[in-house]
Amino acid sequence: MKLSDTGELSLLKTIRRRFAVKSKDIIAGIGDDTAVIKPSGRNLLATTDMMVEGIHFDLNLTTPYQLGFKLVSVNVSDIYAMGGRPQYLLLDIALNKNTEQSFVDRFFDGIRDAMRSYGVFLIGGDISSSRKDMVFAATLIGDAKKHIKRSGAKPGDRIYVTGHLGDSACGLEILKKAVSCLSSASRPRRQLSTVSRKLNAKDYPIISKFKKMGLTWDTIYPMIERHLMPIARNPKGFAEYATSMIDLSDGLFIDLSRLCDESKTGAKIFIERIPVSSKMRTTSSLLGLDAIKLACSGGEDYELLFTAPSNKKINAVYIGDIVKSGRKIIDTNGREKKFSASGYKHFENQR
Amino acid sequence: MKLSDTGELSLLKTIRRRFAVKSKDIIAGIGDDTAVIKPSGRNLLATTDMMVEGIHFDLNLTTPYQLGFKLVSVNVSDIYAMGGRPQYLLLDIALNKNTEQSFVDRFFDGIRDAMRSYGVFLIGGDISSSRKDMVFAATLIGDAKKHIKRSGAKPGDRIYVTGHLGDSACGLEILKKAVSCLSSASRPRRQLSTVSRKLNAKDYPIISKFKKMGLTWDTIYPMIERHLMPIARNPKGFAEYATSMIDLSDGLFIDLSRLCDESKTGAKIFIERIPVSSKMRTTSSLLGLDAIKLACSGGEDYELLFTAPSNKKINAVYIGDIVKSGRKIIDTNGREKKFSASGYKHFENQR
Repeated sequence: MKLSDTGELSLLKTIRRRFAVKSKDIIAGIGDDTAVIKPSGRNLLATTDMMVEGIHFDLNLTTPYQLGFKLVSVNVSDIYAMGGRPQYLLLDIALNKNTEQSFVDRFFDGIRDAMRSYGVFLIGGDISSSRKDMVFAATLIGDAKKHIKRSGAKPGDRIYVTGHLGDSACGLEILKKAVSCLSSASRPRRQLSTVSRKLNAKDYPIISKFKKMGLTWDTIYPMIERHLMPIARNPKGFAEYATSMIDLSDGLFIDLSRLCDESKTGAKIFIERIPVSSKMRTTSSLLGLDAIKLACSGGEDYELLFTAPSNKKINAVYIGDIVKSGRKIIDTNGREKKFSASGYKHFENQR
Repeated sequence: MKLSDTGELSLLKTIRRRFAVKSKDIIAGIGDDTAVIKPSGRNLLATTDMMVEGIHFDLNLTTPYQLGFKLVSVNVSDIYAMGGRPQYLLLDIALNKNTEQSFVDRFFDGIRDAMRSYGVFLIGGDISSSRKDMVFAATLIGDAKKHIKRSGAKPGDRIYVTGHLGDSACGLEILKKAVSCLSSASRPRRQLSTVSRKLNAKDYPIISKFKKMGLTWDTIYPMIERHLMPIARNPKGFAEYATSMIDLSDGLFIDLSRLCDESKTGAKIFIERIPVSSKMRTTSSLLGLDAIKLACSGGEDYELLFTAPSNKKINAVYIGDIVKSGRKIIDTNGREKKFSASGYKHFENQR
């Protein structure tokens, strides 16, 4: 059953039914010209992120469930990075009319599960057809008692991250290798649209090649999932001490540079303190990749990068210090090297 | 100069420079993980609308200025339709890398002029490349002292509209005819990307054919512009009396049906009271179109449709009455006919 058979009205009905919410703060949700929300009295936070087929995702590699989940996560990550509480989502989706209804259902499963896990409600949106590629955009509204900007870091503050870096970039490298090895004949027979939630080894025939290299599905899947379905990190445990914060969407070097630019400071980080998972270390070594490069320049980890005074006890990984000026990475022998912002840029011929 | 030459960072810089705003209520605008806004204490309104190339617009027929202006207007129209004040815009744009920089500049001119005229500030967004079609999505946040839902109409209330209906639909019909008459050889030599703001007769060679039919550019251009660059109607003068309201985006019959559905009422409207411009009447008659059908079923007028008690003096066009049940249109001879919701639906093979 395709969207061209079921139509827009049926899709709208499904959404209204699936996402009908009762919340005392939502005066009007989906179904009027705008949503109407009771004010919380706190500062309002708002962010938006889009995902475009062929640019941000490849339907041969991701399930619709993961796509929906990721769309919510990347927006929640921005709200968390301001020390805020995510609350209300508006969703724009443009779908090719040949899209299977089952694809849309699984996509909404991912949206719903992510919204539930973050405590977010859907309050509005817009649906359109598209001639070819799918496009999704989400706007997330939240609030904050005390918001944490990128600009508050002070020399002497410590720099922290909330978890392993580079897993997502390594997952992407694995997926890219899988694609480049697939002949057109051995490509998945179908889009992964009917896969219920998680991927299985059988979804990627190429996995047998990885196996011969000593890489099992259990080793590589967590990294693939980190890339396809990131989970945003809640800063609850340390937000009260954070002086500045940003989420790692584009990579440690580029995002730390942004934080330093806004705070007008420098930074030095210690290579041996950068948290790298053993799975990522093993995989990158077997695939001939540079684990530290993936951890420092790879994007989409969606861990939080933040600073806090050095006298506070912080439950996160201490990776370096804010200094007056200069941006340096220090290796295990104490040698200093400059780092600079580098990451993916749209409109340039990189991918 | 194309985007592939100038790149994403240059585009981001342009946006930050052009849309940098000073407002005491914007604590953080573009440039952090989220925008941060001081609460106004009023109820919050939020809406989103997207525009997809090949579905909502054709680059052979619209200028980028008009596109940008329309993207803001259609969202403002939703906030106005709730009796609210439009305030903060978030913008998602996906552009093909072969897009000319001049196109983007003119598109932002349209966004800026529309934002200025409505008193709206840009507080965030996301930029992406796309493989082919352009996609724009905007989310608009506003507030309201007293919001006006679709559901408040009561039997005995009068039904009003704020202006001429069908001009936009007639403008679209003219554009469609222009396209269908254009042989590939006589199509405009270039996209209208460098046209500064308004269209001229010379942008459409086919205009000479219309001239022979007695239709001058001065007659048809206001309708074309109404379609390509609508201006949202501010309900300031009557909002305090309105019991229900909706904006006319999909057509009088379908939008009035929605209002009646939500209010659980019926409606009767009088054909001779429906405001039709003389230009639209002339044009539709010469082109063999039904003016009343365009006025009742044509979309994208972005006039406001609202109800108010019959004892209030309202500066708008009275077209009929809310009744207990039934949806009827009454012709000049007093004959009643049922009307039903009909309009454009995505995913179906209509266009």
